[in-house]
Amino acid sequence: MPRTSFKHIDCPVAQGAELIGDKWKIVILRNAFFGMKRFDDFLQSLNISSKVLSARLAEMVDDGILARETSETDKRAKLYSLTEKGKDLLTFTVSLAQWSERWDQKELVRFITKSGKPVARVTLRSASGKEVRHDDVVVAQGRAKSSELSAIRKILAHRI
Amino acid sequence: MPRTSFKHIDCPVAQGAELIGDKWKIVILRNAFFGMKRFDDFLQSLNISSKVLSARLAEMVDDGILARETSETDKRAKLYSLTEKGKDLLTFTVSLAQWSERWDQKELVRFITKSGKPVARVTLRSASGKEVRHDDVVVAQGRAKSSELSAIRKILAHRI
Repeated sequence: MPRTSFKHIDCPVAQGAELIGDKWKIVILRNAFFGMKRFDDFLQSLNISSKVLSARLAEMVDDGILARETSETDKRAKLYSLTEKGKDLLTFTVSLAQWSERWDQKELVRFITKSGKPVARVTLRSASGKEVRHDDVVVAQGRAKSSELSAIRKILAHRI
Repeated sequence: MPRTSFKHIDCPVAQGAELIGDKWKIVILRNAFFGMKRFDDFLQSLNISSKVLSARLAEMVDDGILARETSETDKRAKLYSLTEKGKDLLTFTVSLAQWSERWDQKELVRFITKSGKPVARVTLRSASGKEVRHDDVVVAQGRAKSSELSAIRKILAHRI
């Protein structure tokens, strides 16, 4: 069965899920945030097959999350570094980790600033900075209009 | 090849990725945030096979993200609703959508409060509310200590 792509779906959650909604990509991203760049280091760290790692890295390069470089000291080494688009996934990654820690209640790691201050829980806020509760969030059509949003609403209109 | 599970990895990013790092689960979650509950509605909305949908829903129930209910009006209908743990993934989901919108630059949807105020960009902040830059975040060991974090650092110590 061919792999279903979400790239044509005009919804930012579906498109985001297509680009990074994959457990291997998320741990590759995690390691990249630690500064990991070498193919062999990802391979050693992740208990992943060379084939799966190559495929995921290639997709992440295609999608602009990682950039491929050649090492200046070792021309054979393949290096992958975060682009600005990739770095911009830090909030997503920390949000996922904080969620996992909240419900696992173990505190395996802590996110702090370089000066040692704790990073606060990532949360939804209004423009004025006030925390927004889960049940106070509404999704509205944007400038480009999402036909996916309309389709979901149409299905739900029969139910509610 | 058996599916590699990240559940034994003592890292909240890996554990979070195991639970929700899947494109199908992310769009199921999205629809659940819209109030979708019925198996048949997910099936109609997502262009997914019944087999894949069943498997993903079962995992999400096992992992405490969704709860399975029986409809009071239609005993045959399988309903899936968000648990508190599932609702707590809204920030993660909005963060992903906002990231996608930022880099796609289309504005397909807008997140607003019920009173019409825009939801701000989800971002990392210190406890005092100040925005924390990507390169100012450090990961430290928590109370439970992550051997995964130690292993990543050990690999990188040879490189940096």
